[in-house]
Amino acid sequence: MAKTALITGASSGIGRGAALKLGSEGWHILAHGRREDALRETEELVRVAGGTCETFAAEMGDMDAVAAMAERATAPGRLDALIHCAAKFTYGAVSTDRFADWDLSIDQVLRATIRLTAHVLPAIREAEGAFVYICGPTSWLGWKNHAIHCALRHAQAGFAKALFEDVREDGVRVTLVHPGFVNTPTVKDDGKDRSRMIQLDDISTMIATAIALPNTTCVTELTLRPQRSPYI
Amino acid sequence: MAKTALITGASSGIGRGAALKLGSEGWHILAHGRREDALRETEELVRVAGGTCETFAAEMGDMDAVAAMAERATAPGRLDALIHCAAKFTYGAVSTDRFADWDLSIDQVLRATIRLTAHVLPAIREAEGAFVYICGPTSWLGWKNHAIHCALRHAQAGFAKALFEDVREDGVRVTLVHPGFVNTPTVKDDGKDRSRMIQLDDISTMIATAIALPNTTCVTELTLRPQRSPYI
Amino acid sequence: MAKTALITGASSGIGRGAALKLGSEGWHILAHGRREDALRETEELVRVAGGTCETFAAEMGDMDAVAAMAERATAPGRLDALIHCAAKFTYGAVSTDRFADWDLSIDQVLRATIRLTAHVLPAIREAEGAFVYICGPTSWLGWKNHAIHCALRHAQAGFAKALFEDVREDGVRVTLVHPGFVNTPTVKDDGKDRSRMIQLDDISTMIATAIALPNTTCVTELTLRPQRSPYI
Amino acid sequence: MAKTALITGASSGIGRGAALKLGSEGWHILAHGRREDALRETEELVRVAGGTCETFAAEMGDMDAVAAMAERATAPGRLDALIHCAAKFTYGAVSTDRFADWDLSIDQVLRATIRLTAHVLPAIREAEGAFVYICGPTSWLGWKNHAIHCALRHAQAGFAKALFEDVREDGVRVTLVHPGFVNTPTVKDDGKDRSRMIQLDDISTMIATAIALPNTTCVTELTLRPQRSPYI
Repeated sequence: MAKTALITGASSGIGRGAALKLGSEGWHILAHGRREDALRETEELVRVAGGTCETFAAEMGDMDAVAAMAERATAPGRLDALIHCAAKFTYGAVSTDRFADWDLSIDQVLRATIRLTAHVLPAIREAEGAFVYICGPTSWLGWKNHAIHCALRHAQAGFAKALFEDVREDGVRVTLVHPGFVNTPTVKDDGKDRSRMIQLDDISTMIATAIALPNTTCVTELTLRPQRSPYI
Repeated sequence: MAKTALITGASSGIGRGAALKLGSEGWHILAHGRREDALRETEELVRVAGGTCETFAAEMGDMDAVAAMAERATAPGRLDALIHCAAKFTYGAVSTDRFADWDLSIDQVLRATIRLTAHVLPAIREAEGAFVYICGPTSWLGWKNHAIHCALRHAQAGFAKALFEDVREDGVRVTLVHPGFVNTPTVKDDGKDRSRMIQLDDISTMIATAIALPNTTCVTELTLRPQRSPYI
Repeated sequence: MAKTALITGASSGIGRGAALKLGSEGWHILAHGRREDALRETEELVRVAGGTCETFAAEMGDMDAVAAMAERATAPGRLDALIHCAAKFTYGAVSTDRFADWDLSIDQVLRATIRLTAHVLPAIREAEGAFVYICGPTSWLGWKNHAIHCALRHAQAGFAKALFEDVREDGVRVTLVHPGFVNTPTVKDDGKDRSRMIQLDDISTMIATAIALPNTTCVTELTLRPQRSPYI
Repeated sequence: MAKTALITGASSGIGRGAALKLGSEGWHILAHGRREDALRETEELVRVAGGTCETFAAEMGDMDAVAAMAERATAPGRLDALIHCAAKFTYGAVSTDRFADWDLSIDQVLRATIRLTAHVLPAIREAEGAFVYICGPTSWLGWKNHAIHCALRHAQAGFAKALFEDVREDGVRVTLVHPGFVNTPTVKDDGKDRSRMIQLDDISTMIATAIALPNTTCVTELTLRPQRSPYI
């Protein structure tokens, strides 16, 4: 029976990359995203790569939708991995006119992460499976105009580090992936050189290898940087 | 004219310690807490120490109360420091029956921190003042059964590190204080040796010294540990 | 033409594991160690695994031997990787009767690392190759009775992090590998459960995968921990 | 009886600043430096500040001189603090023509630090005293063209962190001070704005306060940054 991974943020970027890679290795992919059309593209690409795929459209800021997605993902009785790539980027100064946006960011990035984890944890534990969280250097650095973003990235990292202590005895891995600048469709084409960024396949290869190790070992942190400047 | 500090969590522990120390150095203290009676004790102790004190009772999980407190604190037109000690400790396994408690923790620890900061930032900027956030080793470590606590402590640290980049040019300090095990009233007396913990006056002395430096220098991080084992 | 890796500390443990893994993937291995007989075993094992292997016996504390090894390793004109696993463990209290041992540790761990790197850097740069340094959690933590060990592990990590900034533009990777407790022959069998430690093949797999990425991406840090307690 | 501090690198900069501050608070200062004339200036300045001072001229790269200095410093039977400010800055690419300079750096920065610590440890332990090591951000970051410098700063930090675990039970403090850009005489006047750097008195104030705490608490790390840009 194929291993199954729930991959959030799989309608593009790192999540789609992970879907294609694991799909090509025979995993059954549960692809989450917000946009139905993009998810159907992911589904088709996973099939072309040799895998099978189901899709879930959900807003990560909607806790009922998160619960429903987790319920569907765990219903078949087998879930081997949660690859959590969905994110929301929050930019700007600390200011009282940003509260609504911050609330949304907190819900999408922090509440969704911890709730989704809690929902699928029994199934992942049953499978002695893996949690993979895509984080990044803002989980240990403070950047100007990124106070909320840094807060939420730090939070994800803190959560994942502690989660490993909770679940290691049960054979469940927890891997924090810290990519630098990645060549994703959301990167703006304002003169940037995409060939000097981390490529999606590079991250996917490392993730797939980490979660395929026999579970004597857990890759707890994995930091990737663009080989060449100017990107961090 | 006396310098003024808004100190959250001042009804006991580190917050009250900071209130007494700054009060004794001539600061006017705006003491926040949840319990009116404990705040009145703080007020009296600050007076005995030679300072002046006003009190604000507010639930940090109530964003309207946070806004109201900030409005009162900035109304007189002078606010030199926010010493943010209010906290909520979240303990336990990652589990779906904990969501209500987590929501409360997120509100009290993260939303309250970032909103209160945003509310008072214009006044602190005007005063070329200081932000001090009490954090701790769970802001960089992951501890078993502390996943939400670690997430929220990491979040505070990430927020503070980035905030410094935003405000340093304006002469506003941001200091992260990381105490290990502190002798506070909330520590359980189950055979613990309080004399081997960090004492409140030790932290207060370091905070008071840091924010009194001429503002060529910002003490960005300050880590304190109990001198003797067994506490971390 | 086969890729070539100089692997130090290849007479056992992580170094031998890396030699077998890369050998099995078609690399030509230059295996360094102190003991000739153990090196011959490594050589034979690499051949069985499908690779080719040469051996260099050298004391890492002897800077002339380090230079001679580097000269031999770079003589054929091709060197694609230095996998630096040779180590010396230094245990004990800080005391004036330990100076001779510390001097040896400094030579073997720090001077050897930076000199060997400098010697082979032109060849690695020519090949757009990779440096891999085996380090560990003592490169960021302080452990009781490990002051010199922690100093030297920190030093290696600091060197590697800075080296990446020097060479990234030339397409040279620098990877820090931080394994927790590894099942190596040097582990004492005093009731320890080897099945609960990191296995050599797990590390080798991650290293081999990291250095085989197309060089748009550098895996700068890779932290591995034993999945199950009690080991760190 | 006055407390006594051995301060290395006290002929200028941070070391001299610490000498003046502690001297003004009534400490007896043992001022180490390389240059006799500069040390005499420090001695005179300490006296003007109200303290007493002896001087030791020694090359930190000369292990016999380090031992002799330690012997003189501990001879009177009382040593309350080692404030270790002496440093050597190592800049440049990783290259085989730098070995002599690196050897000198290793001796001056690493061997001198650990040996001096070992020599004075019994006296400091007797006094339940303090070790203070001036380090900096290169003890956790990797900077281009600073590979050896980063290695040695990391090493000092690793040593100090572990040392605290060794000596905390004996009431001996170990404090790592991480200043950013400091206004010292060695800073080049190539258009730099000294008023935007950390001032010596700021660091000295924080050090003096940390080591004067009752020894229930140890300030293990203290990070200072210039308040305003452009310096790190």
